[in-house]
Amino acid sequence: MSALNTDLYQLTMAAGYFAAGKTADVATFELSVRRLPATRNFLVAAGLQQAVEYLTTLKFREDEISYLRHQPQFKNVPSEFFRFLADLRFTGDIFAVPEGTPVFAGEPLLIVRAPIVEAQLVETFLLSTLAYQTLIASKAARCVLAAEGRSVIEFGSRRAHSAGAGPLAARAAYIGGCAGTSNTEAGFRYGIPVFGTAAHSWIMAFPSEEEAFVELQKLLGESTIYLIDTYDTLEGARLAARLGRPIWGVRLDSGDLVALSKEVRLILDAAGLEDAHIVATNDLNERRIAQIIGDGAPIDSFGVGTELATSSDAPALSAVYKLVELEVGGAHTYTAKYSEDKITVPGAKQIYRSADHDLIALQTECSDTFTGQPLVRPVLIHGRPIEPLPDAKTIRGRALSQIAKLPAELLRIDASADYPVQHTDRLLQLSETLRSERQLVRLPE
Amino acid sequence: MSALNTDLYQLTMAAGYFAAGKTADVATFELSVRRLPATRNFLVAAGLQQAVEYLTTLKFREDEISYLRHQPQFKNVPSEFFRFLADLRFTGDIFAVPEGTPVFAGEPLLIVRAPIVEAQLVETFLLSTLAYQTLIASKAARCVLAAEGRSVIEFGSRRAHSAGAGPLAARAAYIGGCAGTSNTEAGFRYGIPVFGTAAHSWIMAFPSEEEAFVELQKLLGESTIYLIDTYDTLEGARLAARLGRPIWGVRLDSGDLVALSKEVRLILDAAGLEDAHIVATNDLNERRIAQIIGDGAPIDSFGVGTELATSSDAPALSAVYKLVELEVGGAHTYTAKYSEDKITVPGAKQIYRSADHDLIALQTECSDTFTGQPLVRPVLIHGRPIEPLPDAKTIRGRALSQIAKLPAELLRIDASADYPVQHTDRLLQLSETLRSERQLVRLPE
Repeated sequence: MSALNTDLYQLTMAAGYFAAGKTADVATFELSVRRLPATRNFLVAAGLQQAVEYLTTLKFREDEISYLRHQPQFKNVPSEFFRFLADLRFTGDIFAVPEGTPVFAGEPLLIVRAPIVEAQLVETFLLSTLAYQTLIASKAARCVLAAEGRSVIEFGSRRAHSAGAGPLAARAAYIGGCAGTSNTEAGFRYGIPVFGTAAHSWIMAFPSEEEAFVELQKLLGESTIYLIDTYDTLEGARLAARLGRPIWGVRLDSGDLVALSKEVRLILDAAGLEDAHIVATNDLNERRIAQIIGDGAPIDSFGVGTELATSSDAPALSAVYKLVELEVGGAHTYTAKYSEDKITVPGAKQIYRSADHDLIALQTECSDTFTGQPLVRPVLIHGRPIEPLPDAKTIRGRALSQIAKLPAELLRIDASADYPVQHTDRLLQLSETLRSERQLVRLPE
Repeated sequence: MSALNTDLYQLTMAAGYFAAGKTADVATFELSVRRLPATRNFLVAAGLQQAVEYLTTLKFREDEISYLRHQPQFKNVPSEFFRFLADLRFTGDIFAVPEGTPVFAGEPLLIVRAPIVEAQLVETFLLSTLAYQTLIASKAARCVLAAEGRSVIEFGSRRAHSAGAGPLAARAAYIGGCAGTSNTEAGFRYGIPVFGTAAHSWIMAFPSEEEAFVELQKLLGESTIYLIDTYDTLEGARLAARLGRPIWGVRLDSGDLVALSKEVRLILDAAGLEDAHIVATNDLNERRIAQIIGDGAPIDSFGVGTELATSSDAPALSAVYKLVELEVGGAHTYTAKYSEDKITVPGAKQIYRSADHDLIALQTECSDTFTGQPLVRPVLIHGRPIEPLPDAKTIRGRALSQIAKLPAELLRIDASADYPVQHTDRLLQLSETLRSERQLVRLPE
């Protein structure tokens, strides 16, 4: 990832901090989600592995620095700054909620404590990376809940927002509970199970549907899934029934999935193929899946594409990255923003999770006072990982077990429910003090 | 880009075509958008440059092939296939509508004619790449129309779907008419103007707003934009007025942008800063921009983030990639899909654009018959570019001039209007013949 893949203002501010002699100032930023989308009762944290890979390899190339030097915004910048930039690496500390953990609005997903230039520079990447994977993992969790034990597979690479997003959507969807993905790079890179057999073009590339089916069966044996709707779904099912074993199942991709799956099941069963599965695809989402299951469709597996890889009912999270503490020449201050509609809470925080609520405290508050499980853990210290990160399969296991522990009303996909997130008295007082001090300071103006 | 960044079924089909002796079959696929989203009257084609970069560098690495070899779906595949895959390059022909061209539902954005394995393999990348940039360029065009000559800048990298999408969103938004972006890599890579000065954290990193403003002015001179809403917008404006020149302007990022911008304008004007600009940000989109302008807000420039980089009111296009022709051993056939709700039109096509309608014809129809301007052009022949592609600035100019030529009702952002897209008689007949032949063929089953 290019170090230039950030907002320009991160770089103008870097130059400004350098020029103002503030490169030794240490900033603490907190990444959190301001509000949950209306259709989400919880989020599933994801994307930390990519954040760590970025932070531990961050480096400006000479051609990138030369580009900056020639931008109008940098014409007054001392040339020492560009040497500083060439040597810049991420040397700060990262604390984060482990991937696969359910999180709520206002909770810190990730905390950066670093020299202010470094902490500022990485904002854009961290926001897009954590927000996107968290968005998709959260959507996947809803699809998996809706499927009530039937498997859900991520098929959305073709509709993901650019090709690079495909493998990350696959990873996040797997973390959120999907059984696997069609994205082969995600299988290669993250060890995620990959699925897929043939498209309509395969059927059309042979003189007849039968030849196409026979060739597929020769190749895939017991992994064979016939796509039966290219010409006529029920005739496709009859052909599959006639060809018999080996077969894993059939796929429906159009029409009335409920009615068709019932008829297809009868056709397969009548041919003694009771163990052949029915996979359904075609603009599915968690509400459609719930409806299809509610209507008694004998579908064993759902492939979800567009709506999962783009989280289309809620395609963005209100993720923010806010300065919460600052150390200048040994003097420490808490910071917060009190503009009209965007208020932040100061201080680096810890989350203590109990069975029925979360408590947010300052990291510096004595943890003995709190009974819940602390969720925020150190990840990088002085820019170096303190332990290897878990693989995607382990993260998925964590997510499934932690989601199962959430209050039942949060797990409904058709009704919204709030999870109580409280702040300690110390945190509330600090926030109030800062706000009133700021107001006092403003009075004389 | 990894060659594995594709759906697994593209690879199982590749193995199947290899095993069935069909690697010499030549397939023609057409990439188009099935339906426009409800809130889009036209799309702006974008993403071709990235498609060409991918196609001309496609290659499987040994470790990727070894991964495939060990997947269960490949256990019956002859090992010659993996050698075939190692040597595979894209050797086909690409025809496409140039980037920056307005396009409509059912029109071919891109046509691939290649050996069937190659044509199939590249589907996933081509769909995600063209669909994403087209999605964003189209959304940007609406924002630019709403701004009625005021500038629109793309600020959405932090909310884009993963970090890799940021520079591509910036490129597409620029093609759609934005003045520039905050994404610095997009500036470096595509020569797009980059903008940005400072965030709230800059203001908070200094003991007072005044020190923060003074340091910024020292650094940026006449490029200075003060972010004035960290503590109190009007006091921020008064401070900016007191500091005086050099200044480019001020930025509002919260509160009632209409009321605040009017008051801020008065404060700046009273200090003789009539030439200082007002930039507004904060969850903007084309409808908000139109409303703000309608309410008489003296805002000169709009920064649009989340809603632009995610096209959040329509976060996906129904882009499809359909087999339209097939050549097997010298025998040519047209192909189409007639499943219940997804019908495609056969044959590689040309679009002829007239002032008030488009006509879609088969590429093989004699163009002398048609008066419109042909839009689909050759891009790669035998895998090689036939001419250098235009840069982003040239493409943006094309988009602006071509959008201006569209019927006026299409340029309204608050009302939907259809553009007439007709098919030639030959194409309609071909489609009908194929459908009835297919039905005849199906009768005996």
